[in-house]
Amino acid sequence: MTEKLYDLIIIGGGPAGLTAAIYAQRAKLNCLLLEKVGLGGQIALSDVIENYPGVGSISGAELMAKFEEHAKNFGAQIEFAEVEKVEDKGAYKTVKTTNGELKTKAVLIATGAKPRKLGVPGEAVFAGKGVSYCATCDGFFFRGKDVVVVGGGDTAVKEAVYLSKIVRQVTIIHRRNQLRAEKIIQEKAFAQPNIKFIWDSVVTEIYGQEKVAGVKVKNVKTNVVTDLKTDGVFIFIGITPNADFIDVAKDKNGFIITDKFMATSMPGVYAAGDVRDTPLRQVATAVGDAAIAINSIGTFFS
Amino acid sequence: MTEKLYDLIIIGGGPAGLTAAIYAQRAKLNCLLLEKVGLGGQIALSDVIENYPGVGSISGAELMAKFEEHAKNFGAQIEFAEVEKVEDKGAYKTVKTTNGELKTKAVLIATGAKPRKLGVPGEAVFAGKGVSYCATCDGFFFRGKDVVVVGGGDTAVKEAVYLSKIVRQVTIIHRRNQLRAEKIIQEKAFAQPNIKFIWDSVVTEIYGQEKVAGVKVKNVKTNVVTDLKTDGVFIFIGITPNADFIDVAKDKNGFIITDKFMATSMPGVYAAGDVRDTPLRQVATAVGDAAIAINSIGTFFS
Repeated sequence: MTEKLYDLIIIGGGPAGLTAAIYAQRAKLNCLLLEKVGLGGQIALSDVIENYPGVGSISGAELMAKFEEHAKNFGAQIEFAEVEKVEDKGAYKTVKTTNGELKTKAVLIATGAKPRKLGVPGEAVFAGKGVSYCATCDGFFFRGKDVVVVGGGDTAVKEAVYLSKIVRQVTIIHRRNQLRAEKIIQEKAFAQPNIKFIWDSVVTEIYGQEKVAGVKVKNVKTNVVTDLKTDGVFIFIGITPNADFIDVAKDKNGFIITDKFMATSMPGVYAAGDVRDTPLRQVATAVGDAAIAINSIGTFFS
Repeated sequence: MTEKLYDLIIIGGGPAGLTAAIYAQRAKLNCLLLEKVGLGGQIALSDVIENYPGVGSISGAELMAKFEEHAKNFGAQIEFAEVEKVEDKGAYKTVKTTNGELKTKAVLIATGAKPRKLGVPGEAVFAGKGVSYCATCDGFFFRGKDVVVVGGGDTAVKEAVYLSKIVRQVTIIHRRNQLRAEKIIQEKAFAQPNIKFIWDSVVTEIYGQEKVAGVKVKNVKTNVVTDLKTDGVFIFIGITPNADFIDVAKDKNGFIITDKFMATSMPGVYAAGDVRDTPLRQVATAVGDAAIAINSIGTFFS
């Protein structure tokens, strides 16, 4: 790689990164997008996405192929390399990758986040076939049905409340005997007649044929394993942002803190999509974040 | 209209409102969308939109038809009425419309904003044919060409800087002898070699054949009218949010102030899209805002 100075390096090729590439090309920024494994990000693994407005029902992979085509039609330059470190050198930033070091005026972090897995038999097999990590994405597919929510933190309980409007019955399975979620969220959950709780328990197996049919639930105090029939398993035991390579202000879970311009605590470094401290992680929000970030970068850092 | 209590009333049927309707239907909220004139909002007037990710090049009207179809496929309920007043009654809100009064637990304001017009001959005729009110939307169509920017405030000067990367020459025409924009933005503009200024002047006419060919520029001190050939005229003399019907916290230009959940200062009232104090007004940002707003409403106000 050369001593060239880019206007912008986008790190990550999911919905936020590809949107950023579209906007950056249209703003005539001298821009490079770096992707570690394959374009599309987490959403490319989704069988069906029905809530990206204007597109209707489509697979995540197909939608991301459209994003990729859109970015490439505007001449987006994409390279495959993993970013190991971003550092502020004052007049520019260095982006250290597995292919060498690059220099750029601005950086957009669009590296996404990964839901933590339960790591039990059946979880991987039934992903997208009853196992989900996103109620806003998949809740609607379970309308009138019974679902299990695994977890007891803010996200788990919020998502259980969200699901309670859609499904027949929500069962929250939590390994402790009380929720970790904020009191106000707990109260919302306790007030829903169709949310019930199984305390001191963990899911040890997810089973079914074509789709999820039930879970094995073990009480961690008695070690008794019971069987619970269910149509869906929503797992909210944590989500890990892909942000270890940069030292900027982050929230307690490691998500990058941004202002309304999507600026991080490092001047010239912006973040968009799942990696930032956003209240919702969707294709729709990723595209909004990315458009704002590029507008900010185009005005202030190029 | 009845004494029914809605979970949510969405006010406005542009990109933000229609996205909100999609998300609300999928969250099984009991929701009504109210639109004043016609679905689609300002963007429906755009000849070409090229930066809604995944869709490629499309007319604003076609894109909004897709949004409308998407919302209706999920059963969105839409009524045509103008909202005159939204009031907080504690346990619920009242939405006073030209068709009567409605009650709802939550309100989403997605009423958009209108760019202020110059009001000179040629402006309406050449809208979308060289006259534009959005550099991020239309700047790319003028790459390598010459454009005029009318205005001297923050938006005008920022957009001029944005355009300077794309076009050959930007000429800022401002009616005073200095810019109103923040100093830091002014400095960016003064540093661009391809931005020049015509001070103490106003555009009195936009002319051309099929497309814009030039403008008439009048010096307000000398009254001398000169002719300036140009390919495009970007007008940034203000933008007016459609938010008179509600008494919530607003910025100095009347845009509704929201937090990161899209909540306004009135509990249970949210805002999304162009009507809020956002750094960028795009279909991409409207859909992100709306998704976040509905997620917040679904968790806290239904």
